[in-house]
Amino acid sequence: MLRLRRHHYPDHHRRILLRLFHHSTFHPQPLDLPLCHPTYQIWSANTSLGKTLVSAGLSSSFLLSPASSANKKFVYLKPIQTGYPHDSDSRFLFTKLPSLSLRRKFPSFLILSNSILFSSLFAAKSFLSSRDLPFQPEKFNSEMYDLNFREENRISGEEDSSVSELVCKTLFAWEEAVSPHLAAERESGGVVGDSKVIETLGKCLRDGLESEIERGKREILCIVETAGGVASPGPSGSLQCDLPFRLPGILVGDGRLGGISGTISAYESLKLRGYDVVAVVFEDHGLVNEVPLMSYLRNRVPVLVLPPLPQDSSNDLMEWFDESHNVFDSLKNIMLLAYSERIQRLCDMPKRAGELFWWPFTQHKLVPEEAVTVIDSRCGENFSVYQDQKNKFIGQQFDACASWWTQGPDATLQIELARDMGYTAARFGHVMFPENVYEPALECAELLLQGVGKGWASRAYFSDNGSTAIEIALKMAFRKFSFDHDVLVDFLGKDTTEKCVELKVLALKGSYHGDTLGAMEAQAPSPYTGFLQQPWYSGRGLFLDPPTVFMYNSKWILSLPELLYSEIVEHKDIIVHAAGGMHMVDPLFQRILVKECQNHKIPVIFDEVFTGFWRLGVETTADLLGCVPDIACYGKLLTGGVIPLAATLATNAVFDSFVGDSKLKALLHGHSYSAHALGCAAAAKSIKWFKDPQTNHNIIPERRILRELWDLDLIQQISSHRTVQRVVALGTLCAIELQAAGCNAGYGSLYAASLLKKLREDGVYMRPLGNVIYLMCGPCSSPEVCSQLLLKLYQRLEEFDKVEEKLKSC
Amino acid sequence: MLRLRRHHYPDHHRRILLRLFHHSTFHPQPLDLPLCHPTYQIWSANTSLGKTLVSAGLSSSFLLSPASSANKKFVYLKPIQTGYPHDSDSRFLFTKLPSLSLRRKFPSFLILSNSILFSSLFAAKSFLSSRDLPFQPEKFNSEMYDLNFREENRISGEEDSSVSELVCKTLFAWEEAVSPHLAAERESGGVVGDSKVIETLGKCLRDGLESEIERGKREILCIVETAGGVASPGPSGSLQCDLPFRLPGILVGDGRLGGISGTISAYESLKLRGYDVVAVVFEDHGLVNEVPLMSYLRNRVPVLVLPPLPQDSSNDLMEWFDESHNVFDSLKNIMLLAYSERIQRLCDMPKRAGELFWWPFTQHKLVPEEAVTVIDSRCGENFSVYQDQKNKFIGQQFDACASWWTQGPDATLQIELARDMGYTAARFGHVMFPENVYEPALECAELLLQGVGKGWASRAYFSDNGSTAIEIALKMAFRKFSFDHDVLVDFLGKDTTEKCVELKVLALKGSYHGDTLGAMEAQAPSPYTGFLQQPWYSGRGLFLDPPTVFMYNSKWILSLPELLYSEIVEHKDIIVHAAGGMHMVDPLFQRILVKECQNHKIPVIFDEVFTGFWRLGVETTADLLGCVPDIACYGKLLTGGVIPLAATLATNAVFDSFVGDSKLKALLHGHSYSAHALGCAAAAKSIKWFKDPQTNHNIIPERRILRELWDLDLIQQISSHRTVQRVVALGTLCAIELQAAGCNAGYGSLYAASLLKKLREDGVYMRPLGNVIYLMCGPCSSPEVCSQLLLKLYQRLEEFDKVEEKLKSC
Repeated sequence: MLRLRRHHYPDHHRRILLRLFHHSTFHPQPLDLPLCHPTYQIWSANTSLGKTLVSAGLSSSFLLSPASSANKKFVYLKPIQTGYPHDSDSRFLFTKLPSLSLRRKFPSFLILSNSILFSSLFAAKSFLSSRDLPFQPEKFNSEMYDLNFREENRISGEEDSSVSELVCKTLFAWEEAVSPHLAAERESGGVVGDSKVIETLGKCLRDGLESEIERGKREILCIVETAGGVASPGPSGSLQCDLPFRLPGILVGDGRLGGISGTISAYESLKLRGYDVVAVVFEDHGLVNEVPLMSYLRNRVPVLVLPPLPQDSSNDLMEWFDESHNVFDSLKNIMLLAYSERIQRLCDMPKRAGELFWWPFTQHKLVPEEAVTVIDSRCGENFSVYQDQKNKFIGQQFDACASWWTQGPDATLQIELARDMGYTAARFGHVMFPENVYEPALECAELLLQGVGKGWASRAYFSDNGSTAIEIALKMAFRKFSFDHDVLVDFLGKDTTEKCVELKVLALKGSYHGDTLGAMEAQAPSPYTGFLQQPWYSGRGLFLDPPTVFMYNSKWILSLPELLYSEIVEHKDIIVHAAGGMHMVDPLFQRILVKECQNHKIPVIFDEVFTGFWRLGVETTADLLGCVPDIACYGKLLTGGVIPLAATLATNAVFDSFVGDSKLKALLHGHSYSAHALGCAAAAKSIKWFKDPQTNHNIIPERRILRELWDLDLIQQISSHRTVQRVVALGTLCAIELQAAGCNAGYGSLYAASLLKKLREDGVYMRPLGNVIYLMCGPCSSPEVCSQLLLKLYQRLEEFDKVEEKLKSC
Repeated sequence: MLRLRRHHYPDHHRRILLRLFHHSTFHPQPLDLPLCHPTYQIWSANTSLGKTLVSAGLSSSFLLSPASSANKKFVYLKPIQTGYPHDSDSRFLFTKLPSLSLRRKFPSFLILSNSILFSSLFAAKSFLSSRDLPFQPEKFNSEMYDLNFREENRISGEEDSSVSELVCKTLFAWEEAVSPHLAAERESGGVVGDSKVIETLGKCLRDGLESEIERGKREILCIVETAGGVASPGPSGSLQCDLPFRLPGILVGDGRLGGISGTISAYESLKLRGYDVVAVVFEDHGLVNEVPLMSYLRNRVPVLVLPPLPQDSSNDLMEWFDESHNVFDSLKNIMLLAYSERIQRLCDMPKRAGELFWWPFTQHKLVPEEAVTVIDSRCGENFSVYQDQKNKFIGQQFDACASWWTQGPDATLQIELARDMGYTAARFGHVMFPENVYEPALECAELLLQGVGKGWASRAYFSDNGSTAIEIALKMAFRKFSFDHDVLVDFLGKDTTEKCVELKVLALKGSYHGDTLGAMEAQAPSPYTGFLQQPWYSGRGLFLDPPTVFMYNSKWILSLPELLYSEIVEHKDIIVHAAGGMHMVDPLFQRILVKECQNHKIPVIFDEVFTGFWRLGVETTADLLGCVPDIACYGKLLTGGVIPLAATLATNAVFDSFVGDSKLKALLHGHSYSAHALGCAAAAKSIKWFKDPQTNHNIIPERRILRELWDLDLIQQISSHRTVQRVVALGTLCAIELQAAGCNAGYGSLYAASLLKKLREDGVYMRPLGNVIYLMCGPCSSPEVCSQLLLKLYQRLEEFDKVEEKLKSC
């Protein structure tokens, strides 16, 4: 479909094309962000709308306000600068503020500095020659020159006024005044990747903070000014709004003709990436653009209007800054207030949560306020966690629970899904399903039946979660069994409410299929099923004790229990018993059981709610078992892990047992949001994304499996560790049972708590299933990240071992 | 928080402000769109990027292509034109095409016309004087002048070539070259509302279609060119992208510095409103902007680059058009292909759906392909339905099923929710809930406990749908009852899997609480619960036959059944039995029952899944009953009707019965997407929106109820109709039971089918519950729309009556 008319651009631009496409799914790790003072990102709807004027105005309002006598520090960071050294936004602030200070009645005592860290060779040479400084070849490393130049200035103010400080920094600079991705490509071969920018910015944000905190109260305001518009590419080609800073923002809008549209669209691009915008500000062009903007924003975000800039480009803007002073004061106050409200909210959240929430599977008495995790956002596999220790900050933790086994998207897919969720909500909202068809539901059904259901399933039945998918599957299986075994001779002639025969499921001990009563009845008695939890539970099954497979002491072990075998009525199956403690059931055993059931016309249900969609390294575990079911249930990763949706797939024979002349013969089960458009759209996007080698680099295309994510050596080492009883590592899952006895074992055990607490400090968010712990990643997670997780775990196991030894010896 | 610096704009702009805010939640009805030929909307990332050049290029490629000899018609519509008559985009096409035609080797025989329909007084006077035409005061009506001017031109082409036609129309024009909302305010007092624009555009789109279809095959391409950028305000102040046209679009991007960002943001604003964009095209400025754009779009949308325009503004562009010819040919082919693919897909959808879907509550044998509704999109309360009768079109139907009783948003809220869904998916994706807190979940819990739970509830337990909310409520109630009645003396000392006592619920006959086994057990035997549907169902309750209330023959009737009363163990309650046939249970009866239960320490559950959140005109039916429960369940409208989420609220006393030292005492029930961020964000937005008189004009603030939506006279008339047995009209619900006997009555009945088929033709989408039919609107629906629905229903009842009479007499 692509028809590109190639015009007059030079050949080296082709390289950008290739590079951009190659890196299109790469996403750098987000960075830790200090929260002990406000930090804002300045965005703009387009180039040249005055971001730097806003930064300068804010610095003036913050540092030169006569009312405040406190020591203050304003930090201005410009991560990406093109047109350097002719254009230098950090230098603009550095040179403007003294003049502004001198115009005050009571000028402050000011220390000002301006630094430039790295630049391209061209920019470095221009800069050095303009300053009469020598070029030092040893400072030219991997295509960037380590300028590390700093200039300083001091303004003596009133005797009794305190010292305030302006710190300006340009992080990376290029000479040509074009978009950073072009300048970087032309001048430095594209070596400045997103990780480099984020790492350097992180360092600058943390720079000197320790000493600031020790020094005591100094009010700080920090500004990070972006380049170009919100979705302008940075030096790597990634859009700036796609970089995982996620600082609160100020949007500099457009007051010109057409500027309403540009401002609203830029605002929406930021929102679509999870950014909070606390104010919109723009230069007046006499078109009253603030009116429609305020209407659009419904007064929830303030809109501020700056006076028109003088037409004369030689004007020193001093009068304009004077005239704008009130606006900048207002803007600064909005920013400071929004910051303090945010901190207050984050601080209060654990307490409020403990008071209002009723968490599932949680004994509230065992969760003190300090154990509650405040999650400010997530980006791909990482949580951004609010932490309030020595100082406040947002730290990163790898979500090794894969958000309760559902999580799949990397950061790129997450943003794509966000756009799809917006589109689908706008286009379809929710549409009732029966007798209707709409694109997301149809596409999702097609992908399910061509994918996990390929070769056996012919119908897709949608519901909301794994439990309901199982309840539906049971109803299908009951009918099919009754149909095949003449339990129901005439569907309409007799009273169908009469009990004909007692139906039971054949299932595996230790399995778990959900918490609604029907799903519970299909599992063996356990702590989840007692009278205390659900007095109606009776356990309507024959429950087999299956052989399991695991690694211990670097070797794979097959554990054979005493087999129970009796008359079977129906069968439920799952290759990994997840909630039951991550046991891997012997696939051969399962295959034989499935075949035997099908020989007796007993419908077989695969519960793939947990195991489906690459959780175990394949799209469907039918591929691992080498056999297919009559009915199968899907959920969790089905939508990529952003929104609930479940599907029960069935063969045509199962479907046929519900077809007839009466509505009463139909499957009278449904949920109002059946096949809801958002869920189906998320599923359609994720199913395609996970199996496409272009978007999921873990896919081995010819074999339709994921490459190994868990390093075998490390897994063997862990399995040989003295604290470890067994390891199961398959696909995205690595589960470890710790050696434990007595009350340390089992679901109620708190044995692993201290170990996991330490791992949180390492940036790994895990939760135990009693004495079983696990690491879970997404289908797109990189093996490198997985190895880091295993290493961290191994190190903490060593420590854990020593502590346990000490406890035993006491 | 709003700090607006008011600068130098004149006072009359204030009026715009007020008007915009006043109309901020008004949304016009979407229009029927013909689909028998392709129609595209041309959007632009900013003003002056060349939308009209693209339109002209397309018209030339479509009409002047030598390859095709068929008769062709190109329709160009410009709904909104400012700067008129100096600027007239439709006239640009009208005057350019002849010159372009003459440059061809084989010019076509062309008929061209250009019309202007309405203009402001200023624009009319300028236009008339430029043409030496008289001003006719009688044509000046409600601030707009009915110009209705048409000019024509003919180009003689080759003898044997067929006649092609270019039709250009400007719909509304103003003189000043500013944004339409300003021009309209200044020149015509803002009288051109959205409805007027949409209605006129609809007329132009349908204009002459009948005769075209009769005349036979003439290839037609229609273009609707917007004004300014995608989010530029139209004459009413509404953003152009917010008007419910929802035609597929072409985006004219920006090739300049900063243009990547503007183009991406504009694209995202369109997606956020459910628009499909089939191509991006822009003028080359030598900056290779197509490379990052293609990367962003992942090759799913083609990007085309036009050669740079000549700098000289007097240039007649003939050479530029020649040079661009290939690009326009490609663009035209993309548009024609996308159209035919779309039509093919829409045509195939009913068949595909019938083959792949397994619809809930549906006997597939009774749903022929032609009965399947193809829903192309929804906008507020309306479905856009693909229809393929005499000719193909997208028609509008009011969704009177409120999409299975969940639907709430008007079109404005739907777009707000779309943006919130995008933001929340980007910021949080999904975050596991236990022991965690994140903003959407906390805000949602706060709003629930301050709203429907106010005065009694202290905890919010989240799940995915009504069924699971009920299963959770039952588990809570069992525990509380056991706790209060010493059924469990020691939670940890004894084997908790042992059955202590048989617990039953006290519930009402005819009630329905969902389709999972636990929820089913709490309802009386019915067609849903027989062996055929769920062999495990036993009906674990005492089921009372309650008194009900309804209107018949213009009078309210209280229907008293024989009351059953026996020892009670627990109680479930609901004010309207929805799925059971829309029976309204006597509130006094319910209040007394609740009080009696609570006197006996029997926990009371309110099932508000259907009735909550304004469905019955109040936020919680506790207000109607005058008593509060111990536990209550919410779902459906909780999220405004876009995404599944449920909540079970409970008192502190209920919560306390789960608190202890062991995890095993906690409520061990949960779903992986518990309190998922998207659902909570949708709920938080909707809860606030529905109860705020600023956003929901139906709210009577001081009484916290909705105004009457159903006209009493009409309801009385319907209740007196000879086909009607009873009517229940309350809040957003109007249910009607038709007189029916024998197999015409009951859930399996198809009695109402013919009636509802007729109503679909009237644009009302309804589904029956046997011989009960209902109209359901949203909490923000206007009483005017509701009255129209009642009128249409009444008319069809008259007809139905006659047919039934005839059948009986046969």
